[in-house]
Amino acid sequence: MHEAQQQRIRLPELRNRVTTAEQAASWIEDGMTVGMSGFTRAGDAKVVPLAIAERAKSEQLKITLMTGASLGSDVDKTLTEAGAMTRRMPFQADPTLRAAINRGEIMYVDQHLSETVEQLRTRQINAIDVAIIEAIAITETGAIIPTTSVGNSASFAILADQVIVEINLTQSLELEGLHDIFIPKHRPQREPIPIMSASDRVGTTAIMIPPEKIVAIVITEKADSASTILPPDEETAQIAAHLVEFFKQEVKDGRLTNSLMPMQAGIGTIANAVMTGFIDSPFEHLQMYSEVLQDSTFDLFDAGKLDFASGSSITLSAQKSQEVFANIGKYKDRLVLRPQEVSNHPEVIRRLGIIAINTALEADIYGNVNSTHVLGTHMMNGIGGSGDFARNAYLSVFATKAIAKNGKISSIVPMVTHVDHNEHDVDIIVTDVGLADLRGLAPRERAQKIIQNCVAEPYKQMLLDYLAEAELRGGQTPHVLEKAFSWHVRYRETGTMLEQAVALKAVA
Amino acid sequence: MHEAQQQRIRLPELRNRVTTAEQAASWIEDGMTVGMSGFTRAGDAKVVPLAIAERAKSEQLKITLMTGASLGSDVDKTLTEAGAMTRRMPFQADPTLRAAINRGEIMYVDQHLSETVEQLRTRQINAIDVAIIEAIAITETGAIIPTTSVGNSASFAILADQVIVEINLTQSLELEGLHDIFIPKHRPQREPIPIMSASDRVGTTAIMIPPEKIVAIVITEKADSASTILPPDEETAQIAAHLVEFFKQEVKDGRLTNSLMPMQAGIGTIANAVMTGFIDSPFEHLQMYSEVLQDSTFDLFDAGKLDFASGSSITLSAQKSQEVFANIGKYKDRLVLRPQEVSNHPEVIRRLGIIAINTALEADIYGNVNSTHVLGTHMMNGIGGSGDFARNAYLSVFATKAIAKNGKISSIVPMVTHVDHNEHDVDIIVTDVGLADLRGLAPRERAQKIIQNCVAEPYKQMLLDYLAEAELRGGQTPHVLEKAFSWHVRYRETGTMLEQAVALKAVA
Repeated sequence: MHEAQQQRIRLPELRNRVTTAEQAASWIEDGMTVGMSGFTRAGDAKVVPLAIAERAKSEQLKITLMTGASLGSDVDKTLTEAGAMTRRMPFQADPTLRAAINRGEIMYVDQHLSETVEQLRTRQINAIDVAIIEAIAITETGAIIPTTSVGNSASFAILADQVIVEINLTQSLELEGLHDIFIPKHRPQREPIPIMSASDRVGTTAIMIPPEKIVAIVITEKADSASTILPPDEETAQIAAHLVEFFKQEVKDGRLTNSLMPMQAGIGTIANAVMTGFIDSPFEHLQMYSEVLQDSTFDLFDAGKLDFASGSSITLSAQKSQEVFANIGKYKDRLVLRPQEVSNHPEVIRRLGIIAINTALEADIYGNVNSTHVLGTHMMNGIGGSGDFARNAYLSVFATKAIAKNGKISSIVPMVTHVDHNEHDVDIIVTDVGLADLRGLAPRERAQKIIQNCVAEPYKQMLLDYLAEAELRGGQTPHVLEKAFSWHVRYRETGTMLEQAVALKAVA
Repeated sequence: MHEAQQQRIRLPELRNRVTTAEQAASWIEDGMTVGMSGFTRAGDAKVVPLAIAERAKSEQLKITLMTGASLGSDVDKTLTEAGAMTRRMPFQADPTLRAAINRGEIMYVDQHLSETVEQLRTRQINAIDVAIIEAIAITETGAIIPTTSVGNSASFAILADQVIVEINLTQSLELEGLHDIFIPKHRPQREPIPIMSASDRVGTTAIMIPPEKIVAIVITEKADSASTILPPDEETAQIAAHLVEFFKQEVKDGRLTNSLMPMQAGIGTIANAVMTGFIDSPFEHLQMYSEVLQDSTFDLFDAGKLDFASGSSITLSAQKSQEVFANIGKYKDRLVLRPQEVSNHPEVIRRLGIIAINTALEADIYGNVNSTHVLGTHMMNGIGGSGDFARNAYLSVFATKAIAKNGKISSIVPMVTHVDHNEHDVDIIVTDVGLADLRGLAPRERAQKIIQNCVAEPYKQMLLDYLAEAELRGGQTPHVLEKAFSWHVRYRETGTMLEQAVALKAVA
């Protein structure tokens, strides 16, 4: 432990701040706003949060919790069960927390992931009292070297009054040098973010803060939680194949070169599978400028397809995690982890010309996308970075399986029950059935293309019938308002979006 | 005329290109895509378009028309009536065209105003065949000096095969020097847009193209169409007063200085009235970084409140137009007109930290905004630049009168029938009733605040009833899907959103 401490806490005067998780948690007071590291299960603070939850069982202790994105290590679950959280932002993906949010017990502020720290910096939302940041080490000057994610950690540490560091001995010291910490200046002194290419490094490799702000250091040995994404299946393979075909045609038409443009892929099974599909494609020298680097990123490296990947976190399955982190040196010069404000910054996304691939929960016939709300009301995870990317992308793709729940749900509906991305920000809709290229089309044309290309029977005919009835009423975006959500209401009441006659026929 | 030609066509070899509108229109062929100058009635091509319409009456001539934004001079009306247009983008505001769009006869591609030329440059939409650009003059090198708007004119002229110039003798030569033409490079050579302040000039004062692309020059003497905005009234004055109070509190709380941040105001009566409200405010040394500079901009200059205004067009009422353009020298060093790609660029908007004030057609209890579609189906004008500004702003404000049509319509509804701006992009909702500050709030909290602060009776109680019923069903964003559009359906069927009992009571 002594040697590890010297390696991991390089500023000697900080070594006496090493303490227990329980002691560190005592810095947290009722009503405080706490900023924690962690982005899609990677690099989260793992033991102090649980000690906060433990305290909350026996005393009044309720916090607002801000993070980078979702956490692993059952942190959200445990804090929820302990009643330790009144407010949560900007993203989550935990079933227990989600249930509490949907019961209205915890206020969930779902934000574009690039924006949280802008609002903090300008004091438009509650200030961070304490930051809890996982690190591989603290440098000779007291700077914090993050682990497998950067997320909002840098701004949290800079803006907080006090900082608690969790030094995680399971996170390899070889991660040092991977991070690129760039913090935009306060306005009106703000200058351009000088990133001209996914591989540009523009900041420091550690989070620079006055070391006296570090009030406690806790040594941990808990590994990151593994990614929960599922392996590619038949439908996701078809989605990937449709997209590869589309890009081949774009290259053929001279709009893209064979190395395409820097790519972003949303978190989750479908986006990961789509990226996996590029392994067996003709494209080469690809680059990623994304938020989460998933298994597919390293599969693409190994296949010789990917030249560079910029992200804000590395979130891998258990097996992939062992392979990658045991050999991180092999990948390190082709990787950079940035603050999510930078990985998701509109300025950089627009400048680089990103191909953004995100997942839709449902889309409608006009190409509006719901990424977050089941039946328009119940939160799944959150909008995440999809809005940062989709609006500013060179090309914005949304992917979904055509049907869900054995065909009882159509992912393409007359009207989405919640709009996260409107038609202006959606260039391509792709399902396992096919792909609709919506560029330059008006809503009535978009509807025909989406229905013809992307929808499974019998929903295809049902949507054509809806559209025909709607067009009788006219408009730029024809709808029959009293029927626009009838599929969702039917699903809620009968367990299927299919009309009764059709459903009976399907059974027979 | 000879002297005027020397002053206005300074490259002698171009003087023999002067021709009639009819001759110039002969360059247009059936099926072509034509890019015309014009942004919110300012600086539009005025005579060649009408000659195109005239031709279309006697021959097969149907074009795709792209502009900066809306046109004056009855161009959209005349082209529509002549059946000369099959497709229109990215914005319009003409009643005749709007009716044809809503009948499905003209395909209208409603776009974020910063994005059209990005899609053109990357050939993701049809290429421009001919550009028709209004100018005050052509320089010694053949460069085009625009008039009262820049819009998309520069990129249209650069990307088109052929360019027709309308030299408008009613547009003062004193406008020369007002424009700042900056065109971002093609990716991956794209660099930062070097604007650090609303007043920065980063480009050229004219549109540089090879002079041989100019195939025809037409001399015109038709003035810009006057703005159609209405003067401030009691409700708009109340909206302005609520906003001024809000900003006074922001200054008091130390979040803003007394010069606020650079401001954008959407086109139209309400946004113009809001800006007028700043005349009698304590704020000073204001700046605008906006798209359309309206009457209020010059009222603020005259009141000594405004230091600088950057826009893409100057669109004034008839009276204001005479005052301003007769004295343009007085304002010129405090004005710049930019391409709409730059005035509306996400990079610059985020960097400068814009206060964006746009108009809602309707908003819902969660703060989602419909800017475009009446009853969810029928297009009014288009999203315009509101999406460019709202998503990237320091603070995003949407303003609307609480009621319309003598109280038969509530502008705050259970669920908007079309989403142009979702809750993530809406910080403030303000009506004549009051203001709701939604920053850092979850949807259920947003609903309480919007209903309590912004809604007129009897709709306030109706919304509280809806929310109570919805909350029984739970969710992050509670709704009763089968009733979400019931107000709109009732309005369509009965002519009022009020329930029958309430409506009868109101009559009695």
